[in-house]
This record gives sequence, structure tokens and C-alpha cells, in this order.
Amino acid sequence: MIELHGIIPYLVSPIDKNGNIIADALQRLCTDLIRDGVHGLCVLGSSGEFPYLNFNQKKEIVSVAVDAASGKVPVIAGVSGFSIEQTRTEAKVFAYLGVSAIVIMLEMYFPLSMECIAAYYRSIAESVPDVPCVLYSNPKFMHFEIPAEVFEMISDVSNIVYYKDASGITGKLLNLKNRFNTRYKFFSASAHIPLFVSMLDGVGWMAGPACLAPKTCIKLYELSKRGNIEAALELQKNMWPLNEAFSRFGLARSIKAGLEYLGYNVGNPIPPLSPLSDEDKKILFPIIDIVRALGEI
Amino acid sequence: MIELHGIIPYLVSPIDKNGNIIADALQRLCTDLIRDGVHGLCVLGSSGEFPYLNFNQKKEIVSVAVDAASGKVPVIAGVSGFSIEQTRTEAKVFAYLGVSAIVIMLEMYFPLSMECIAAYYRSIAESVPDVPCVLYSNPKFMHFEIPAEVFEMISDVSNIVYYKDASGITGKLLNLKNRFNTRYKFFSASAHIPLFVSMLDGVGWMAGPACLAPKTCIKLYELSKRGNIEAALELQKNMWPLNEAFSRFGLARSIKAGLEYLGYNVGNPIPPLSPLSDEDKKILFPIIDIVRALGEI
Amino acid sequence: MIELHGIIPYLVSPIDKNGNIIADALQRLCTDLIRDGVHGLCVLGSSGEFPYLNFNQKKEIVSVAVDAASGKVPVIAGVSGFSIEQTRTEAKVFAYLGVSAIVIMLEMYFPLSMECIAAYYRSIAESVPDVPCVLYSNPKFMHFEIPAEVFEMISDVSNIVYYKDASGITGKLLNLKNRFNTRYKFFSASAHIPLFVSMLDGVGWMAGPACLAPKTCIKLYELSKRGNIEAALELQKNMWPLNEAFSRFGLARSIKAGLEYLGYNVGNPIPPLSPLSDEDKKILFPIIDIVRALGEI
Amino acid sequence: MIELHGIIPYLVSPIDKNGNIIADALQRLCTDLIRDGVHGLCVLGSSGEFPYLNFNQKKEIVSVAVDAASGKVPVIAGVSGFSIEQTRTEAKVFAYLGVSAIVIMLEMYFPLSMECIAAYYRSIAESVPDVPCVLYSNPKFMHFEIPAEVFEMISDVSNIVYYKDASGITGKLLNLKNRFNTRYKFFSASAHIPLFVSMLDGVGWMAGPACLAPKTCIKLYELSKRGNIEAALELQKNMWPLNEAFSRFGLARSIKAGLEYLGYNVGNPIPPLSPLSDEDKKILFPIIDIVRALGEI
Repeated sequence: MIELHGIIPYLVSPIDKNGNIIADALQRLCTDLIRDGVHGLCVLGSSGEFPYLNFNQKKEIVSVAVDAASGKVPVIAGVSGFSIEQTRTEAKVFAYLGVSAIVIMLEMYFPLSMECIAAYYRSIAESVPDVPCVLYSNPKFMHFEIPAEVFEMISDVSNIVYYKDASGITGKLLNLKNRFNTRYKFFSASAHIPLFVSMLDGVGWMAGPACLAPKTCIKLYELSKRGNIEAALELQKNMWPLNEAFSRFGLARSIKAGLEYLGYNVGNPIPPLSPLSDEDKKILFPIIDIVRALGEI
Repeated sequence: MIELHGIIPYLVSPIDKNGNIIADALQRLCTDLIRDGVHGLCVLGSSGEFPYLNFNQKKEIVSVAVDAASGKVPVIAGVSGFSIEQTRTEAKVFAYLGVSAIVIMLEMYFPLSMECIAAYYRSIAESVPDVPCVLYSNPKFMHFEIPAEVFEMISDVSNIVYYKDASGITGKLLNLKNRFNTRYKFFSASAHIPLFVSMLDGVGWMAGPACLAPKTCIKLYELSKRGNIEAALELQKNMWPLNEAFSRFGLARSIKAGLEYLGYNVGNPIPPLSPLSDEDKKILFPIIDIVRALGEI
Repeated sequence: MIELHGIIPYLVSPIDKNGNIIADALQRLCTDLIRDGVHGLCVLGSSGEFPYLNFNQKKEIVSVAVDAASGKVPVIAGVSGFSIEQTRTEAKVFAYLGVSAIVIMLEMYFPLSMECIAAYYRSIAESVPDVPCVLYSNPKFMHFEIPAEVFEMISDVSNIVYYKDASGITGKLLNLKNRFNTRYKFFSASAHIPLFVSMLDGVGWMAGPACLAPKTCIKLYELSKRGNIEAALELQKNMWPLNEAFSRFGLARSIKAGLEYLGYNVGNPIPPLSPLSDEDKKILFPIIDIVRALGEI
Repeated sequence: MIELHGIIPYLVSPIDKNGNIIADALQRLCTDLIRDGVHGLCVLGSSGEFPYLNFNQKKEIVSVAVDAASGKVPVIAGVSGFSIEQTRTEAKVFAYLGVSAIVIMLEMYFPLSMECIAAYYRSIAESVPDVPCVLYSNPKFMHFEIPAEVFEMISDVSNIVYYKDASGITGKLLNLKNRFNTRYKFFSASAHIPLFVSMLDGVGWMAGPACLAPKTCIKLYELSKRGNIEAALELQKNMWPLNEAFSRFGLARSIKAGLEYLGYNVGNPIPPLSPLSDEDKKILFPIIDIVRALGEI
């Protein structure tokens, strides 16, 4: 099974007013990011506005990304749903379309017991037994965190290999490490701790900012891996304003605006999400310039 | 435009292991409920496990219900989505399939400004200008409540007529009444307050329990309307244990189990939701018997 | 043991800049409220800013109120603390000072098990075995609700007689009624449901608004008791804007401003609480006039 | 003004069944911790069960700690209250009793505007102008976090020097650093990040665990300061199970049980807090042994 690691940007989903995928923008974005050195590409995550897309749109995005990557880096797709069936279908179809790995997300309507949550992850993973799986839940948007007990219940599912942590609290990673040792590998999800997660044996960073400043993210990753802690830390500090802007203006809204600024015709966020105002852009764009420049030195 | 009122049961979505709609069970349920006197039928609400269904399943459920009702009572369908486009499509297709009204729900992933929330409701309603619309948000499952400001922003949309309140707090209804007078008509959503909502000029009750005990619900509605407060109150008190069971065991899980008990082959809840355990059924079924008996007297 | 019922205003704690109790303002407020017909007086509740007062201030407030009431109506005092010892001390001292009943509140710092919560209520109540006790928790300010299990655990404590519900959800009262029958008597805490709580056999209303519009509150209580539902409901609706103002501007801040407006020198809220701005007063005061007028007719 | 730094244990408040401070236990604890090398002592924090103590108890604890420290290390006291007046009194009296610094906490009952929160911190700090102040809010127990705007509003108060972060999210520290540069100095509050906070120029760790394993905490601090990242990280990882136990069993409950185990007669937690069960002790005590041993090597 393929090993995931390094800087894996969460791509936006370029889409026009009529709901058509803007394939050439997505293609160019993929090509450019690969050229800049990213270690993988992730589509259909939060940055990719996954809940706002229909299945046809999702399939096209996966296909475009797989084609653009043409085997140079792994393409990872987010799969998600309320019902097991919905998510299994996504997993199987995306695997068929050539993704190297999936990020499993769970949308919850009625509250679920831990047994039901575990059954969900197990069933999705078992539907694509050769595909490595990343577990992910963003408590801010999905209103729950994956309990340690669930990790226990599914520890025999061999293709659930990774966990992408959105809490940003290193204590949570320590909890999991102390309980499961090296059973699960970690990705960080937030720009304030890639270095720290790396120090805790994390394998990489699945990152929205990497769409806008890939070289800077890669530099941070490499400094971390080489143990050049001081320089990595300085870089991590200096990148942080980009994430502050994301928090303030919204993830997909910020990245789409930023990519337009960088010359990618990715279109507006999907309604009811609204595009960034001109004033907000005036705050965001200079930060993008600064953070990109940090990767050029 | 058709006027909605009275007892409108929230139907479950009968579905088998392979994801096929069990049309005859749904049909018989509709026919029996109409025979028992309900004033409308609502499909694809929370009780109908709407987030767990795909679009084909939803369309079939709407068609079966519209056919079964055959114009005797209005059929109302829940429409919902994260993107405006998803929900507009549902609204337009369900209208085409013959529903008399829709309940508009909003699933939120990224937090939305009030302007964006209002734009969502407006756009859905305007896509079916001849169809009366009910606004609904269940804070427990959907993690937000519709702010008074949003009601203000959309008050010019003439086919947004109804509001179904899931808070169970009469103060919220008073807030809206004081601010908007009779602009919006209210349905109650919870079994502890149909009488009180009726006293506050509410027009009816959209109710999960009405699937299991339609005559009892109708009796409560009629007592309330006739101003027979004391008897209505007594009935409302005595029906409440059914809702306590729903809270304890889950809405769709309880109603599906109860309908199986009453002889309807509605199938299990949709995974990862699990069916009720035998012990839980032993608690639920006698309560159903008691509450049904209250409607027979 | 004395029976509590009816309209029991929650008094503010008049206090000057130097922390001295303004005894004559409190005295006159008590006297006037009794003259207007209230059925009891409650000091040291939320409206009374209880957490902001030291023990000496609390004792003086109790003494002034007991003197002013001079046995005409029962005086009830809120007792509260983080530790059992703090609250037992308040209970015993206030009983010694002549209160007829207490409202037991629990301030929680570290989360407590249900056993510990029950132990708290039990211990306070048993410290004043001849004094009837009201249980109360305001989830908005105290961050927890008293679980049904706790009511079960303390059901043998004979002087815990009353429960004052701040949830405003009649379903909660029905839960308790179905489980405990008439074991606990209810007071309503919020202005949108005194009638409904009365219909559910509630015994009265402990009310902030009753400080500002005692006659209107009493009228509502009497209409409710006499079964004049329609008139009571109309009055309840028309009183509600006062509570909307309280929600918007803050409870103690609003009532203190309102009492100053009515000629009582009760002083400002206790810092860091701030007094109402002039603009806010311009919104609040006309509402007070209207709601007071409703009681004069 | 004195500079704070390093490992500052949060002491428990030893107290017997009758509410008497067990002065000799506290004294011996102080002496032993100083002998073991801690850089300060902090009384009346969360570990010290501050909300459960009365003012006399607090004063005695401060006095005992100041005497025991006898100038060898700074003694810091938590001050807290709902009203400004309560907290000012504590600050002034504890300063008079000889503390070197205070930790200002705010207990919130009614929600406060940012202006009111800032006014609170300002007023307390200005009441003891020569005493350095640490701001602290534990969102888990105090239900709010200090907003960046408040740090802005009080940035001119020169003796507010430190901020002790309980969020455990390094992104929050980066937010403050980016906005205020070196205006505020940081202490970490949680055992999973002292190293990371140190890397972000944090000055130390105010720590519950340091009561039970002072040498291990000091070792971690020194490794961090010397830039021996790898060893510090290893130690931080290995200490974490102690904090997991604290989370599971409660902070004050765990530390009091642990100190009894280590031979300090600190008494039980203050009711309604309950002492640890025997089973829980069997889990906690071996962890204490292991974590202490880490500091002996």
C-alpha cells in the first residue's frame, strides 16, 4: 500500500456559476503544485467545499486531478456522507477512478453511538481494502471528535492507517500515541503546529495554505524533518497570519479568493457561501504575498 | 395557494437492505393515516431520515406519497441541502411531482452570515413561487436556529408562509409574533406544546408521533381548536411519554420500530443508524399501545 | 411548613458605590410590593446579583427584607456557593434571620457527578430541616441543569418541596410530573409561560418583572388560577416585550434601571456590570410603562 | 518588579473536615518543593480549589506559603471573584501579606461585554500597581476565553505582564505574539506543551503536576531552555499520562490523592467534591511513581 507523507495541499473545487467544473483551472493548479514539489494532492476536503458538490461534480474533480497528477504524486480524495451507503459508493468509485488514498469523513445528523461510528469507518474502509484511509473529523464543522474508543474498535482494520488531527491540541495526539503507540500515523491539519506534530512523529501536513504557498509549506516540512527546529519554528510563526486570515474570512472563501489573485480562474465559493468582499481581499492578499515570499528565500 | 393546518404526520422512509423503497408499506401507511383523519402528510423530514437518502430514493418517496394521497390531503416534502443549487433542484422536482408544499431546511457546514442564510431561504422559495413554504431548523441536529433578523430579511417572499418551531420555547414564538404579528403562521414540532402553540394561534402540529397514534394527535388538535383546554391538556400530558421514548431512543429509530410493531413493513433505520434493541422495544411498545388507546376513547 | 405560591418578585440588591446596602430603598420596595399584593418576596437571586455580594451585604439584605415584610408575606432567600460549607452557612444564618424559605443554587467549578450534586442539595436542605427549599439552576448562567436522576436521589428529603424551572420548556416539567407525580411543586421562572406552568399545576411565578410591574403579574396569576385562559394568555403575550428587553440588556441591569425610573434609589449594577446606556433606557422605559398599565385596567 | 519564570507548582489547599487549614502539611509541601528546585509557588489556583474557600482560609494559605518560602522563591496567589470589589480586596490583602505576584481570574455570572472584562482586569491590576499580574482563564471551568481585544484594551497597564494559557492551542499564542509582539509573556498551563510554549519564547510552566513530580517538571524546563529539544520532547511525552489521569479523575481530586500517597496530610477535596475511589487510586499512583522516576535519572 502506498505511503503518504509530506505536504499535501487541500485543493479547492473550481466551479463556474452554472455548476460546471472548471477543469483547466484545476488541472493547471495540480500541475503547478506538483512542479513546486508537493508530496500529494487532496481533493474534496473542507477547502474543496465537499458538502456543496453533487456526485457528478465530485467524480469529475477526482478524474481531473488523477489525470493531472499522472502518477507523479498520490491523489487523495475526501469521501463523506450521512449514510454508510453514500460514503461506500464514493469510496469505491473514487478508487476505481484512480485515487491512491481516501480521507473518510462522517456527517452526523442523529447522534450516533460509538459502535455506530466505528461501524461506519470500518464499512467504508473495508469497501476499498487496498486503499489506505485517513480518518478525519473537524469538530468545528462536523460537531464531533473521533473518540479514542472508536480508534480502539477499528484498530484491526489494516487499511485505516492515518489520522488527520484538526483539534490543534498536541495533548490529543499524545493520548493516541500513549494508547496505540505507532498503530496510527498522524497528519497535522492546522498551520500552527506542523512542526510540533512532526516532532511527535507526524508524517506530514494536509494543508489548505499549501494551495497558496506550496513552497513555503514544503520548506517548513523539510526544515522540520531535518531537525532544523529553530528555522522551522521561525517559519511556522511567520506563516501563521495566513491561517488567522482563513479563520477570519472562512477557509474555502479565502483560498478561492487567493487563487484568483494568483491567476487561477477557480470561480466563486458555492452559494450560499459568498465571495470575499473587496475590503477583505485587501487584507488577505498582502499576507499571501508575504507568506509566499518566505518560501522563495 | 393551499392552506396548511392540523395534524401532519412526519412519515418514515420505508427502505430495505438494498436501499430500495418499500413502496407498498409507504402506500399503506399513507392510506391508513388519511383514513384516520390526518390533515396532510409530510415526507423527507427528520423522521424520514432525509440526510441518509439519495435523490432517486427521495423522488420515489415523494411520488408514492403523492399517489397514495391522490389529492385527499396535501403532501408536503422536506427539501434540504448544503448548497442552494441542491435544494432548489429538490424543490423544483418535488413540486413537479405534485407536492402541495415544502419544508425548507438548511444544512450548514461552514458558518453562514445572516445575509447568506436569508439568501438561501429566498432562493429556494423563489424557485417554486406557487408552492407554500415552511421554514424549519432543528437546533439539536442542525446546530443553528433561524434568527429573527432572517425572518425580517425574507418577509417580502410571499410564499414563505409557515414556521415550524423545534425549540419548544413559547417565548420564541412570542418574539416572532410581537415582531411580525401574523406574517408567519406557526406549526409546533414537539409533543409537549401543541396545545400551547395552538393557544398562541398556531395552525397545527407536524408530528412524528402522528405516524404511530394519528387518532390521538387529531383528538388533541380538535380539543385545542374547540377551546376544550382542560381535556386537551390532560391528553397532552398523557401523550408525553411517547416523546420521552423518542428522545431516549432516537426519532427515526423509534418510529420505524413502532410501525413494524403496528404491522407496517418499513424496514430498519438506515446504517450507520442501528435498529432498536429488544429491551428498548419492550419499553417503547407498551407506551405506543397506551397512547393509541387515548385516541380511541 | 409554610406553603409558597403566587407571584414572588425577585428583588434587586440596592447598593451604593461604596458597597453599602441602601436599606431605605429596599425597604420601600418591599413595602410597596406587599401593598400591591405580591405573595412573597425573594432576595438574593439572579436579579439580586447574588454572586457579586459578600456575606455581610447578603445578611443585611435578608434582615431588611424580613423586617419590611414583618410577617405579612414570606421572605425567601437564595443561597448558593461552590462548597457545601459556604451554602450551609448561608442557609442556617438566613433561617436564623427569619426567612420563610430558601432557593438552593449550586455554583459549579469542577464538573460534579450526579451523586455529588445530590449530596450538595441534600446537605443544604438538611441543615435547615424546618425550612421549605426550592431547587433552581439557570443553565444560561450556571452551565448545568438539574438532572432527573438527582431529583430521584433526593426525593426522600422532605423539605425539598419546590422546583423553579428556568428552561422554559414545558416538556421538562412533563418529564418530572410523569416521573415524580406531585412530589415536587413547580414555579415558573420565565415570563412566557406562567400561564402554561399554571395549567400544568404550577403554584406560581418567581419573577424579575414583578419588581417593575407587580400588579400586572398578579393579574396574570389570578386570571390563570381562575381558569380565565383567554384573558391570561392575552396578558402573557402583552407582557412579553418586557422580558425581551431583559434578555437584550441583561436582567439585573434592566431591573435596576427600571426601578430608578420608577423612583427607587437602588443604585447601579455592581461592577464589572455596567449601568444601562441612555439609548437602552429609551427603549426599556416605555415598555415598562405599557406593561405596568396592563395591570391597572 | 520581580521577574517570574520556570516551574511554578500550583499548590493544593490542605484542609481538614472542619475547614481548618492544615498548616504543617502546606508548609512541608512548600519547603520540599523549594528544596527540589521549583522557581516559585502558586497558591489559590484551580488545583488549590480556590472557589471552595472562604476569605479567612485563603488568607491563612497565603500566609503559610509566604512564611514557608521565606523569600527563597516568589509566592504567587490566585485572586478571583465575580465583582471587582471582591477581587480587589483579595489582591490588596494578599499583596500586604507578602505575595510577589498575582494570577487574576474572573468568574462570570451574567455575560460581560469586552469593555467590562477589560475594566475588571484593569481595576484589579491597578489596585496593586507594584505587583506583577498574570492573566488567566480556564475556558473549561470558567466558560470564557480572554479575547484578543481585551489584551488590546489593557495593554497600557504596565503591571499586567504575563498570560497563562489554558487552551493548549499554540495557534492562540501565535495570534497574541503576532499582534502584541513581546508585550505579554507566556506561561503554559498544560503538560502537553511546556516545550512548545518554551520554543515560542514562553517563560515557564505553572503546573499542577509539579506538586507531585517537581524534579521531572524542572528537568523538562531545563532541557527546553538549553535547547535539548529531543530529550525534552521525550520527557514531555512520558509525563503526559499524569495529565491524562488528571483529566479523567479531576485536577484537585487527583493531586490531593497523590500528595496523600506521597506522605503529605493534605486532606480530602472540599465537598461536594469527593475523594478518589480506591480503584481510581490504583490507576493514578503507579503513574505518579513512573513520572517521578523520570526526574531522578
